Amino acid sequence: MIRTHDAGSLRATHAGTTVTLAGWVARRRDHGGVIFVDLRDASGVAQVVFREEIQAAHALRNEFCVRVTGEVTRRPEGNDNPDLATGEVEVTATELTILSEAAPLPLPVDDQVEAGDDVRLKYRYLDLRRSGPAHAMRLRSRANQLARGVLHARDFLEIETPTLTRSTPEGARDFLVPVRLQPGTWYALPQSPQLFKQLLMVGGMERYYQIARCYRDEDFRADRQPEFTQLDIEMSFVDQEDVIELGEEIVAALWADLADHVIPRPIPRITWHDAMARYGSDKPDLRYGVELTELTDYLRGTQFRVFAGAIDAGGYVGAVVMPGGASQSRKELDGWQDWAKARGARGLAYVVLDAQTGEPRGPVAKNLSAEHLGGLADAVGAKPGDAVFFAAGTNAREAQELLGAARIEIAKRAGLIDEDAWAFCWVVDAPMFEKTDEGGWTAVHHPFTSPNADWVDRFEEAPDKALAYAYDIVCNGNEIGGGSIRIHRADVQRRVFDLLGITPDEANDKFGFLLEAFKFGPPPHGGIALGWDRTCMLLAGADSIREVIAFPKTRGGFDPLTGAPTPITAQQRTEAGIDAKPKPAATPHTGTAGPAAPVADPV
Amino acid sequence: MIRTHDAGSLRATHAGTTVTLAGWVARRRDHGGVIFVDLRDASGVAQVVFREEIQAAHALRNEFCVRVTGEVTRRPEGNDNPDLATGEVEVTATELTILSEAAPLPLPVDDQVEAGDDVRLKYRYLDLRRSGPAHAMRLRSRANQLARGVLHARDFLEIETPTLTRSTPEGARDFLVPVRLQPGTWYALPQSPQLFKQLLMVGGMERYYQIARCYRDEDFRADRQPEFTQLDIEMSFVDQEDVIELGEEIVAALWADLADHVIPRPIPRITWHDAMARYGSDKPDLRYGVELTELTDYLRGTQFRVFAGAIDAGGYVGAVVMPGGASQSRKELDGWQDWAKARGARGLAYVVLDAQTGEPRGPVAKNLSAEHLGGLADAVGAKPGDAVFFAAGTNAREAQELLGAARIEIAKRAGLIDEDAWAFCWVVDAPMFEKTDEGGWTAVHHPFTSPNADWVDRFEEAPDKALAYAYDIVCNGNEIGGGSIRIHRADVQRRVFDLLGITPDEANDKFGFLLEAFKFGPPPHGGIALGWDRTCMLLAGADSIREVIAFPKTRGGFDPLTGAPTPITAQQRTEAGIDAKPKPAATPHTGTAGPAAPVADPV
Repeated sequence: MIRTHDAGSLRATHAGTTVTLAGWVARRRDHGGVIFVDLRDASGVAQVVFREEIQAAHALRNEFCVRVTGEVTRRPEGNDNPDLATGEVEVTATELTILSEAAPLPLPVDDQVEAGDDVRLKYRYLDLRRSGPAHAMRLRSRANQLARGVLHARDFLEIETPTLTRSTPEGARDFLVPVRLQPGTWYALPQSPQLFKQLLMVGGMERYYQIARCYRDEDFRADRQPEFTQLDIEMSFVDQEDVIELGEEIVAALWADLADHVIPRPIPRITWHDAMARYGSDKPDLRYGVELTELTDYLRGTQFRVFAGAIDAGGYVGAVVMPGGASQSRKELDGWQDWAKARGARGLAYVVLDAQTGEPRGPVAKNLSAEHLGGLADAVGAKPGDAVFFAAGTNAREAQELLGAARIEIAKRAGLIDEDAWAFCWVVDAPMFEKTDEGGWTAVHHPFTSPNADWVDRFEEAPDKALAYAYDIVCNGNEIGGGSIRIHRADVQRRVFDLLGITPDEANDKFGFLLEAFKFGPPPHGGIALGWDRTCMLLAGADSIREVIAFPKTRGGFDPLTGAPTPITAQQRTEAGIDAKPKPAATPHTGTAGPAAPVADPV
Repeated sequence: MIRTHDAGSLRATHAGTTVTLAGWVARRRDHGGVIFVDLRDASGVAQVVFREEIQAAHALRNEFCVRVTGEVTRRPEGNDNPDLATGEVEVTATELTILSEAAPLPLPVDDQVEAGDDVRLKYRYLDLRRSGPAHAMRLRSRANQLARGVLHARDFLEIETPTLTRSTPEGARDFLVPVRLQPGTWYALPQSPQLFKQLLMVGGMERYYQIARCYRDEDFRADRQPEFTQLDIEMSFVDQEDVIELGEEIVAALWADLADHVIPRPIPRITWHDAMARYGSDKPDLRYGVELTELTDYLRGTQFRVFAGAIDAGGYVGAVVMPGGASQSRKELDGWQDWAKARGARGLAYVVLDAQTGEPRGPVAKNLSAEHLGGLADAVGAKPGDAVFFAAGTNAREAQELLGAARIEIAKRAGLIDEDAWAFCWVVDAPMFEKTDEGGWTAVHHPFTSPNADWVDRFEEAPDKALAYAYDIVCNGNEIGGGSIRIHRADVQRRVFDLLGITPDEANDKFGFLLEAFKFGPPPHGGIALGWDRTCMLLAGADSIREVIAFPKTRGGFDPLTGAPTPITAQQRTEAGIDAKPKPAATPHTGTAGPAAPVADPV
């Protein structure tokens, strides 16, 4: 090492010691011939004093990289800086080496400066010198270490699975890779290691994990990256309780160490149906109440067409209360309509309760009977001065989700969110199937997700009610992980395929090599995947996963630093075999060909 | 868990305990109504006894997955199996559940059976149930853990770098990925994180590591995979000694734990030039001697045209001795000529020394003077009964490499290799530059590799002699890692580019965003990468990296299990934007565009 000490490690006990530091000029002040420099390295900052004899110090500018030798001295009386870990001392320089110079900075290395994302990412190497981004990198590294500690203590094996895999015609969101040595053929980058981790269980590995890079070529929503990371886990001979217990152990270790928060355990569980009914979401934010109330029965017989239509069609009417919402201006109440329309709803019916009298007012009030109005406050748990928002629809889930979104918005607007709180829950008992537009059934998770014990022998009786051993872990309204117990019984798998209308030929074509593997004594198994970017984002208190990724991409998958992606040359195109025709008769691998399940543990 | 105990954990102290096990039927023997089953799980094997009353046991076949409840009992007197950790006990079953059945096995799960690679990889999930492959997976997981332990103890940060990166026109071996959202543009999969780890150093991260997936689309030589893994490390404010010390610490931790071998330290160092001169290789196998001898001076003045030509042209003549090689048959000696021709040489001149008289014989002997013949044995250190192989050439390196390859072959044929030995060395002081065919200079490593202190101020004086701070670590003749100290001084970088004939414009075009980053106070830094597949292969005592990869590919990048790569559909082709024309005027990012250095820490 070209230094003897980390700058951030100096204390009063070092006084009298000669040290050599190396780092960057974080700040430079000229005090009549004496130059003070805050020298920053990865460990922290120390103050260095250059007296007249160190001429080179005059050349120093921000972010020059330097090496300094000098004596650690106590700062003069009254000059201590209690905000700095090294604030009791300074280093009086006797030698200065400028290791490299810095051009004028396009992005100030200063925690107080807010720069735009494009500039920050283009000069990410300067951005990372700031304490916030540097801290996020350290936090993520530590998160890896903590999770691995839990897993290794339980004899999990870290196993790498391939990232150049088989493309699936269904996998419209696979990134593709042309294969020069077999022109006309392509690999796909995996959306998750799902298939391979299940094969590892068939292979008797029993306990697998990997912090795995995954790829999804989807339209970039707010906070998505084309490549992302998940902590991927699979276990054999387990039931749902085992996976949940392990998930809690990992999450507890992370939050205890990195957020100084002891998660009360067991983490509460809520069924998927309860989550939808009470919070209008399968990832409810439990930092606040504001629960939904179903009013389908209460309002039965109403003349109000919007509600009556939904009720008569076997649908749903519900409401959510905004505490103090009656004090909103007309403009604010209109704003809710815009908000609802932006979400694709036709609007958001509401009633406000007069703050003095509790009398219901507003457009919907006119349409409801006196009886319905009179009992409304009690029915929904509202007080005078509150607002009541309604949603109705033949599709209960859509109406609930609208109210669920309103609930979140209410919490924001009414300031109900404790930003320092952590609220975890498991959402369990997810439905197995949902209706397709064509009237058939599709798997909510993937076709290998196991029905639970109640339903495994009779899911055909009521596919819409059948429940799976599928579970998500939610933190403050963010789904940070999810998984399921998989089907290992051939008879159950066949019945699920039958219900989904997948013929044996189709199954072989779609899921061939996994089904082939399952012919050879597959163990009961299940797993979970934690969305690692999002988990680290929450731990870092950041508002975007980009903050916990060293070199993230912007929307559209653009990298402002390297300029990727770029056009390629004609020569590259030819060499990579992009336009080659595949050989007509690629050797078929009977029984094992066919793409894998494209759907993974949901993250 | 659906079991109470791991099968492999049962001992005599468990006698009398009722246990539930779950695993696979490894072996089944029928002894007149009583059925003995070896039950295997990840922990090991236990013997289970099924008496008449457990009817279902008759249905058991190899690799059925089962759960068994029963009482642990001491085996009857004389029936202990000392080869088995659980050999003192057996489990007398009271309950049997068949969790899943197994079809007839295409690949016996038996350590004694040698199956072809194609079958093994097609049914890799069966192959992994065998103890050898399962052990290799466990070893690799443990290797990760050991390396991480060393690195975390030294405050290294584990940081993930992108794998969807910028394509480089020079990088003919980049895998390419079309970008649907920016049709006509492509990502490249990185050959290593080289560029990003250097950017992290500019970003002040100081100590970085990653067990990184890398990609190289090259013609598949014997033991290459299109995706491979390296333990990638970079450090700031260090010199070569620091990186070497860390590398030794990691390697020592691995070998101590996984190979029960304490590596003597410091690991010996040999300069690159010495390695070539003495062993004809930049990755010498030091488990045996058989050093090369240069004879250029000794043979000066010879009439033998082959040698004289090389000597007169300023080239090289050398020899290597095969102990006892005089006893080879004519056919064996002819075989050496075929061996040399297969390597692209014209042949391998030799002299054999009569076992009795020491008299030199053979075709070359006729061409050498009595004086040269008389002193030959002493000059090369040969004894009566040995053979002496020669190589000569105007290109010393080529001739040395031929002798180096002969040296390895000699060691094999003469049985000189101690298969239980471990011989490590560092090869240091690698050359900076080598001549191009056009008479210019090219960088041996990459243009960011730093000249060493002796040469940094004068490498232009003798580019062919200039040495770099570049180092490789070698184990038993395998290069398992390598790295370098990088240039951080702008003036040195400019001079290296000048020597390489790279104009500032070209430099910007080729290495733009790295050079841009280097304008802002880059720290002195350097690193190393360990080829993780090869390292684990050596630790596992395997002869192919495939043995330590969960799902490896065969030659040509084919995966017998999934059938990847495959043709894609026309719809996939369209959706992925493969044939889209790039927009003509993609926003240029002035000064930061341009591809990265395509050459990485050599692994």
